[in-house]
Amino acid sequence: MSRIAVIPGDGIGQEVIAEAQKVLAVALPGYESTEYDLGARLYNRTGEVLPDTVLSELDEHDAILLGAIGDPSVPPGVLERGLLLKLRFEFDQYVNLRPSRLYPGAPTPLADVKPGDIDFVVVREGTEGLYTGAGGNLHTGSAAEIATEESLNTRYGTERVIRDAFERAKRRRGHLTLVHKTNVLVHAGGLWKRTFDEVAAEYPDITTEYQHVDAAAMFLVNRPHTFDVIVTDNLFGDILTDIAAAVTGGIGLAATGSINPDHTHPSTFEPVHGSAPDIAGQGIADPVAAISSTALLLEHLGRNDAAAAVNVAVERELAGRDAGTKIRTGEVGDRVAADVAGQLS
Amino acid sequence: MSRIAVIPGDGIGQEVIAEAQKVLAVALPGYESTEYDLGARLYNRTGEVLPDTVLSELDEHDAILLGAIGDPSVPPGVLERGLLLKLRFEFDQYVNLRPSRLYPGAPTPLADVKPGDIDFVVVREGTEGLYTGAGGNLHTGSAAEIATEESLNTRYGTERVIRDAFERAKRRRGHLTLVHKTNVLVHAGGLWKRTFDEVAAEYPDITTEYQHVDAAAMFLVNRPHTFDVIVTDNLFGDILTDIAAAVTGGIGLAATGSINPDHTHPSTFEPVHGSAPDIAGQGIADPVAAISSTALLLEHLGRNDAAAAVNVAVERELAGRDAGTKIRTGEVGDRVAADVAGQLS
Ligand SMILES: CC(C)[C@H](C(=O)O)[C@@H](O)C(=O)O
Ligand SMILES: CC(C)[C@H](C(=O)O)[C@@H](O)C(=O)O
Repeated sequence: MSRIAVIPGDGIGQEVIAEAQKVLAVALPGYESTEYDLGARLYNRTGEVLPDTVLSELDEHDAILLGAIGDPSVPPGVLERGLLLKLRFEFDQYVNLRPSRLYPGAPTPLADVKPGDIDFVVVREGTEGLYTGAGGNLHTGSAAEIATEESLNTRYGTERVIRDAFERAKRRRGHLTLVHKTNVLVHAGGLWKRTFDEVAAEYPDITTEYQHVDAAAMFLVNRPHTFDVIVTDNLFGDILTDIAAAVTGGIGLAATGSINPDHTHPSTFEPVHGSAPDIAGQGIADPVAAISSTALLLEHLGRNDAAAAVNVAVERELAGRDAGTKIRTGEVGDRVAADVAGQLS
Repeated sequence: MSRIAVIPGDGIGQEVIAEAQKVLAVALPGYESTEYDLGARLYNRTGEVLPDTVLSELDEHDAILLGAIGDPSVPPGVLERGLLLKLRFEFDQYVNLRPSRLYPGAPTPLADVKPGDIDFVVVREGTEGLYTGAGGNLHTGSAAEIATEESLNTRYGTERVIRDAFERAKRRRGHLTLVHKTNVLVHAGGLWKRTFDEVAAEYPDITTEYQHVDAAAMFLVNRPHTFDVIVTDNLFGDILTDIAAAVTGGIGLAATGSINPDHTHPSTFEPVHGSAPDIAGQGIADPVAAISSTALLLEHLGRNDAAAAVNVAVERELAGRDAGTKIRTGEVGDRVAADVAGQLS
């Protein structure tokens, strides 16, 4: 029996996760879930973000389903670093996966693209680069202040994520793009490019390409259909996946997995959107991204048929909407769950 | 008399700079120019990119007009670092300025935007951050390899570019957005944010905003009309300006200035596009971006009327085109120069 830790979190996180669980109930019947009350409430009550005991308990699960964290009452960065990034590092979630598909009915800002035109995944490294926290400040607050940030990259870390990306490209359309900034970041760029080229030699059937991050950012806007799988470092991946979300209709629809492909610790699945305190509690948040994140979770647990059913149901849900459609959170979850149940029965 | 150093460079750089000079001849009558043959040819002949003697000579000029550098025969990065970045650092060009405007007739990939909807400038820091080259590799080529890149930021460097951005916002619509990643890059982000807030107190009439770089990247795609002036660090600026170019019709139309606002050394003005060896020598390259870069050059020299005339002429040139218009490099330059001459006579 699969054991899922559920962290609804703050604001609309609560609401959308309830719908994701409706879908999970039919897609992964009998799964056991434990709910963890983490986020702004815990922090404001206790000053704690992720107590060690909770971290150990989370570690006993097969996966983590997370809603959204963040509230204006908490200083920016505290929950992000103390919870989201902490899970990525502690649980060695080195594959930060973000699929981008343009669904029928999704509100893309681009002209001249049709549903199906955009369909790629970004494999973002999740445990290295500029995200390690290395760096410091000297003479803080004075005219002489300096501040450093250090990007730390290892052969070990780049090779494993690059291998994961090649495997994904093999299961998709067979095209992999490495994105970095080798013309300026020669040290880390050199490591990434050499590692990529060496691993590529083992995958003669995968076509490969290299793009500088600035060019890739532009191409995601003016020719997103040319991408299949993108592999890149932690910070570049952070930026590129938000561009990807923008061209496919906004972060409101995007889902992400922070994945430990070796299953040595649980992986985290969540919608990309935030806690949206402005619309929380009204039952109008769109749970589609949270539901899509269950598809990634199901895939990670090897339940590919159930994952596919969720994706199909999400696609039908979006196709059935038009510009005037009012979202009722609970109804969306009911509809998608019923669709998934029908497909799997 | 203004002294302009001209570096046509490689590929279409030669062709578009000839047109920019036609325009400059009428916009800055009697300017003196010295041409420098830098780029792939010099490198392939001598192994040199920017000899010290040339650097000293360039330093005697009021501004540098550059076409494009780069050729497949030169290893990637050599000319970029040895020439473009070297000029930025040696000549203390700390304001990397990139205006983005959607001109009538320009091929934006966005739906639902009209000319005039997009009109902002990015003030990118040009002499610090991840561009200093600090970092290294250890155990290169082995399984134990590590690579670091260090982002170096000073109060001195952030404050001067932030002040420049506030001044530009004052001359424009009075709105300034700071972009960084303070929730992850706490050291450099802290320095940028504190410096920004302190300088902001001196500009009570400027409305300010802070955005994380991932959010800003998304907003440049799905609500670009909300920006007026953006100030950001070197690497974020590199990425954001390419997104900005994409939404306003591609780097084919974008111009940039690497500016030393204190005039202690010359500033460089250039089109954003590359040397495009595939279409070089055919007289079909669009010189509009190179011509626009002369407008930035004229502004920097205090010739605001002439700069405005060039911008108007470029706008009319683009408005007169449609999807089928064939570019003849020389004809574009003639038309724009004649228009500028008419306006200034
Ligand atoms: C909240 C933040 C720390 C996080 C990141 O930068 O990785 C977010 O932007 C994301 O992409 O998951
Ligand atoms: C060529 C390269 C070094 C340069 C940069 O990264 O700054 C370019 O992309 C730019 O934006 O001017």
